[in-house]
Parts: sequence; structure tokens; C-alpha cells
Amino acid sequence: MDSKYTASPIYFPSERRRRCNSLWVVLFSFVVLVIYYGCSGSLVHLSQVSTHCSNVPPIDSVEYLARQTSLAKALQSAGALAYIAEPGANTQYFAGFSNTHWRLSERPLLLVISLNSNGESQVSIVTPKFEATRAKSLPVYSNSTVSYIEWPEEVNPYTATLSHLGITEGIVFIDSAVRKFIADGLEQASNSEILSAPAEIKEIRERKSKAEIDILKCANEATLLAIRQVHKKLHIGIRESQARSLMSEALQTMGLRDGGCLTLFGENAALPHGSGTDRSLQASDFALFDCTASLHGYYSDVTRTVALHESHIPSDHLQIWRSVHKAQHAASLAAKAGAITADVDAAARSSLKKDELDPYFTHRLGHGIGIEVHEQPYLLGGTNDTIKTGHTFSNEPGVYIEGKVGVRLEDCFYIDEDGKYSFFTQGVGGPSEAPTFP
Amino acid sequence: MDSKYTASPIYFPSERRRRCNSLWVVLFSFVVLVIYYGCSGSLVHLSQVSTHCSNVPPIDSVEYLARQTSLAKALQSAGALAYIAEPGANTQYFAGFSNTHWRLSERPLLLVISLNSNGESQVSIVTPKFEATRAKSLPVYSNSTVSYIEWPEEVNPYTATLSHLGITEGIVFIDSAVRKFIADGLEQASNSEILSAPAEIKEIRERKSKAEIDILKCANEATLLAIRQVHKKLHIGIRESQARSLMSEALQTMGLRDGGCLTLFGENAALPHGSGTDRSLQASDFALFDCTASLHGYYSDVTRTVALHESHIPSDHLQIWRSVHKAQHAASLAAKAGAITADVDAAARSSLKKDELDPYFTHRLGHGIGIEVHEQPYLLGGTNDTIKTGHTFSNEPGVYIEGKVGVRLEDCFYIDEDGKYSFFTQGVGGPSEAPTFP
Repeated sequence: MDSKYTASPIYFPSERRRRCNSLWVVLFSFVVLVIYYGCSGSLVHLSQVSTHCSNVPPIDSVEYLARQTSLAKALQSAGALAYIAEPGANTQYFAGFSNTHWRLSERPLLLVISLNSNGESQVSIVTPKFEATRAKSLPVYSNSTVSYIEWPEEVNPYTATLSHLGITEGIVFIDSAVRKFIADGLEQASNSEILSAPAEIKEIRERKSKAEIDILKCANEATLLAIRQVHKKLHIGIRESQARSLMSEALQTMGLRDGGCLTLFGENAALPHGSGTDRSLQASDFALFDCTASLHGYYSDVTRTVALHESHIPSDHLQIWRSVHKAQHAASLAAKAGAITADVDAAARSSLKKDELDPYFTHRLGHGIGIEVHEQPYLLGGTNDTIKTGHTFSNEPGVYIEGKVGVRLEDCFYIDEDGKYSFFTQGVGGPSEAPTFP
Repeated sequence: MDSKYTASPIYFPSERRRRCNSLWVVLFSFVVLVIYYGCSGSLVHLSQVSTHCSNVPPIDSVEYLARQTSLAKALQSAGALAYIAEPGANTQYFAGFSNTHWRLSERPLLLVISLNSNGESQVSIVTPKFEATRAKSLPVYSNSTVSYIEWPEEVNPYTATLSHLGITEGIVFIDSAVRKFIADGLEQASNSEILSAPAEIKEIRERKSKAEIDILKCANEATLLAIRQVHKKLHIGIRESQARSLMSEALQTMGLRDGGCLTLFGENAALPHGSGTDRSLQASDFALFDCTASLHGYYSDVTRTVALHESHIPSDHLQIWRSVHKAQHAASLAAKAGAITADVDAAARSSLKKDELDPYFTHRLGHGIGIEVHEQPYLLGGTNDTIKTGHTFSNEPGVYIEGKVGVRLEDCFYIDEDGKYSFFTQGVGGPSEAPTFP
């Protein structure tokens, strides 16, 4: 069997060690007392977890069931019998569990949403039989009793699944994130057509509900507040690793989970996904922070390229910052319900072209965002998706001149019920105003 | 953009905080001095990283190139033009990088091994253009210059790949671990047949070289030594989480990486992949440790179900332990070159049947092991694979009675050049002799 557990290192007890324990206790108590009385207040903020998002509830069961109903309708209208996914973003969306609840292995655990005789959704979980007890403890939303399809080790799980569901032929949709051997197994087990889920099914998750927008708003607001908090604590000479740690701590303090920031100083930021060299911040450097963190399973994504009040940024670098800022604004004017995704990307790109910086904008303008940091649809040249209400995107133009400088500004937005563009971070001031005001 | 970085929490500097820094320095120095003189020696073993595997080298470049040659031959004989994989175990095997070097995203980065006009292997890396600098820093073994196929954001990466390689029709094999949307993209981009890699290609990685066997031997030996080390430090009353931490620390001390153990006490072990309840060890409990850790990218997998000398294990539980022990031995007699995988599984199962425990052996006997903890082929009912020299497997019978007791014993083995069974752990005594002697 396998197992992957990590734990913080602890010391091995030993005779000598035990002798020391009492000494440690005395010393530790002494240190705590001195800190408490000598520096009272200095650690207080460490225990203050922000309440910024405490009034934002997670997705409720009614919404999960509505998602399943939408899926059932999409299946019916496509003439399909079922939808199958491996633990991941789509099982999280439709049923409430993901690959953080069940790690992927070579033994398939699958979510199946099929149609019952009344055309309603029926939720089934395909599980290795010897792990059925653990599978039954997964959080799974369903309108009716969840059906568990338990396959013994020596049985073909795909045959067992299709046989249990009574599917001999017809169309079965699978999530396009499943691994190919799962698709192969289902194909070989039946005469059914095993097809990647079509646009109509993907669109259900793409367009966000009010509850989802509220979560995404607060996640992005809290992330931006964390960046601003850390910005004030930066100083010339601080290392990338130190600043990254400050950011992780700040995101956690804001009540967010799984938070972290790509943290790049000076020319390191010229590689958009660079990993840094732990160099220290110079007076002539921008510092780029690209931060994500989650609230109730939904991700934020905010990038700020900042300077300190005591920085001396070269004027051509400041000019690049202003061009990127203008490009972000240009894109925000182009994005609305009915617009085409490629055109929004083009709006930012042609804004940069005026400053002859378009060759250095080497990536797409933006991505959908929600349960995954990057999800469909994309704001990207060559795409032809129509932007709709409830769509959410990042708006993140950048300029990258290798060996010299990198600037990116990123704020996510949504298309509101009137079809208008709205920054998620608007409630806390929205986009950056200047390198010294993130 | 996204980014996922974790860092250890550190405190925010502040005016008050800075005032305290000097106080901390004084206190810290004091503590260090007291520990050094008062308890000298007690921490010494923490800095002793085991040298047990220090003479075992990683896979060398000659072997990587031989793997590519084997792949090229397999492609030729199957009439295929290329083999394509996403970062993972197979890119590690054939080229030296995996998804620990390059995290999977919606933007494909692919390894392509194709045939040049001389029928030799040609290594290409398909990379997003804006990340080409980072892609070129990946460790990639190749006999000739690696070709980088850079696709700009607005271009279809699959069309770019097949066009660059000059593939318009014919057969292309893909790794069956790739995500379905990658397979879909390749299929839609050409008239080629995109097929999951056949058995002949999978078999290259399944059968291990001498260098691989040497690494696996030492990884498994060191893991067993770590279990024995921790076994001596257990006591009645210790918590699962404490014992798990001791195990992680011990594996690290042995020079292994990514180490961890499923740690289950008493009835918790009756769920083979249970996650435990952090209960404390009682005198009547077995403690089950299922440990994996890696050496040069190859994984160990060892399970011990142990008791302490001061334990009072119920006699029927001790009887179960002996039955599992016998079953493991029975399987070891059945496994040799030429045997059929299902028959080895059956040997363990029929041994347990004599003690009427076979209904409680709810999982397969074993799995292949190497770059992945679980890999093909499997020792499993219903399989029909022929065991060959260089094959490696776990031998891990178990008995699980929910609510009561769980026992598993696991030692990995290989089929040597004479076709004979050999335990990886033989060099340090091999399988457990008794619950008190792991």
C-alpha cells in the first residue's frame, strides 16, 4: 500500500533528552513571560485573524442540487445518459468533493451523475470495494440516496459501473480532465460513445451564481488587503524569500487558505512564471507579487508590481508600469456581455502597441477563475467565446523584457447581471493607482 | 497568473517588534548555551544523516539514453512515429524530469520522443513560448540537441507540435496518464491515430535495470531500518500523530526523501487506507506502519504491523498476524519468472483460506514499484501477465476485520537475473519475524 504523510519534525526521545525536558519548560516559561511583559502588544496582531470575509457563507446544499439539475437538463438535451468525472474541480462543483478529499490513484474513484427514469439526476460514486467505508464518508450532495458502486479488486471497474447503471449503448460524457486510461477503460467496457463533455456542460460551471461571485469578491479583496499590508512592511534589502513569507502569513491572517505569492524582484520579474533567485530588493527594483488564496474553495488571483517610497525606479521602467496600467484599463472598457474574448485581449494589446511595448506582452490577457485559479473561458487571441453574465476573468496585462524588467498588474472581474464589467476588488479600491499605492 | 508557494510563517516587523529583537537575540543565545553545556550530546543524532545509501548512485546518462533507444526500437517495430507524454513518471523515466520540475496546467508542456531519418530517437519539448526560458532549464537527457517547440499563446499547441515534427498521418502513441483534453487536442489537430502506448512500450519501464534494483534495494532497506528504529521508541499511550512524526523524522534521518507512513493503531488499521483518529496506543493494540520514501526518485514501500514487548495482544489477533505472515511466505514461493500474476495473488489467498481468513483479505496482493509507488504490472486476481526478470512488486497480504483489527505485512521484491524471487529487504534481514521483531 502507499501512503504520503508529512509531519513537522520532532525530536526523538532519549534518556538524555528527557533530562532536558524540564530545563526546556523552565526556559520556555521564562521567555514567554519576558516577551509578554517586556513587549506587550507586539504579537497581538498574530492572533487577530481578519474577519473581513466572516459574513460570506460557503455554497449551500440548495445550490449544489440546482447544479445537478442543470447538468441533468444538459444531458437530456444532448441525448446523453450520464456524466462521469474523477475527483477534481468538477466533482467539487457538482457534488462537493475534490481530489483534496480523495487522492487520485490507479484505482478509479468516479462521480457519476446519470438520469433516472423521471429525467432527474442520480448521483453514484464508483469506489474500490475495499475502500468503500472511506468513500462513504466523502461529503457528497445529492437530492436522493447516493448509490455506491463498489468494485472488488479482481473486477473491471468500468464494466461494473456501466452494468450497474444499465448502460449498454448510447452517449456518456466524461470530464476532459480525466486521465486517458480512464477514458480507455470506459470505451473498452461498452458499446457506448465516451465523449468529452461538450460546451453546454462546461458552461454550467463557467457562469457564476451570486453566491459564487460574493465568495470570489471577498477572496480577491482580502488578497489585495494582504498585499497592501505587506507593501508597507517592505524595505530596501529585504530578500524575495522573506517577502514571500510575509505574504503567506498575511494571506493566512486574512482568513484565506492555501495562499501564496510568486515574489520576484527587479529583472527576476521578466520571467512571468519565474521562480526567483532570492535576491534582495534594490532601490531601482520593482517588486512583483502574484498572489492566490482560497475562500470556501474559490480562488483569488491578484498581481501588484510595486515600488517603495524610498525607491529610485528608472523612468523608463515607471513608463512601462503606466503603459501596463493603461492596457488593463483599456481591457476593462472592452469586456462586457456580448463581447468576444479575443477582442478583449486585443484591446489591451493595442493599448500597449501605442507605447511600442506589445512585443513584450507575451501571454494571454486573462483566464476564467473560480474553483480553479485558471479555468475556461480564456481572454486570448484566436478565441471566439462570447462573454456572458456571470463570467469571471483575470485582467492581467504585462510587459517582460528579459534581463531587465517585468511588470504585471492583475485584478479579476465579473460580468454583472446588467452585462457590465465589475472588478472583484472594487470594494477595497480596485486596481492599483501607482507603484507606491497598490 | 497563478502561483502556489508556501513558506514558514514569520512575524511581521513593526516598531514594537524591532524593539524586541535585541531581547530575543540575548535570550536565544542564553538558551543555546544552556542547551549546549547542559545537555551536550542529546541533539547530536539529529545531525547524523544516515550514510546507508550514500554509495548508491542515481541513474546515469548512459542509462537514460539506452531507455530512449529502447523506446525508438519499440516505436519502429510498432510502425509508430512518436511517443508523447505530460510531465510525470514516464517523462522522468525517459528524459529525467517530472511534474515535480514542471507543474501541470491547462497549457501543455509535453515530451515528444520521435524517430529521426536514421531511426534514432529525437527528443523534443513542447513549451508555451512565454515560458520557454524556464522550459529550457529543465533537466533533459538526450543523445542529440533537444528541440524546443515553442507555441505562442494564440496558437494551437497540438497543431504546432505535429507540424514541427512533420507528422500529418500515421500512428502516434501517448502516455495513458495524460489528461483527456491533451489526447483530444492531438486527435483534432491531425489525421494521425493517437493511441495509448501499447504493452511493448510500458514494458520498457516495468522491467528494472541493475542500477534501478540497487536503488530500490537501498530505499527499502533504509525504510525498514527506520521502522525498526521507531519501533524501539514506541510506548503504550503514544498517539498515532506522534508515532507518524517519529517515522517521518526517521525516514529523513536515513537520507530518504518525501517519506511518510500511514500510522494506524488497533481497530483503525481495519481500514486499509484509513486516515486514523489520532487515538493512543493501548496494550491490546497492534500498530500498523505503511511507509514509503524515495531515493534518487525511486520509492520504497514497507508495511509492518507491530506490538511492543509490554503489549498484551489478544491471542486471536496474534493468530491473524501469523496467518498473514504465512500468506506472504506462500506468495514468495509462487513468484518467479514465468509465473502468472494472478497465480501469485492466489497463492497468498489460498494460504489465508486455510485459516478461514480469506474473506478479510480485501485488496490485491501487490503492485509494481519504481518511479511510482504503484505501477504496472499488478499481482491481482483476474490478471494474466507473465512475470519476467527485472520485474518488481510489493508482496502485501492483509486481514481487515472492521471495528476490530487490521494486519498487513509488506516487503517488496524483484525477480533476479536467474528468474528467482528476491526480497529488497533481504540485506537487512527481510520480512518480519514476529510482531515484536519488525
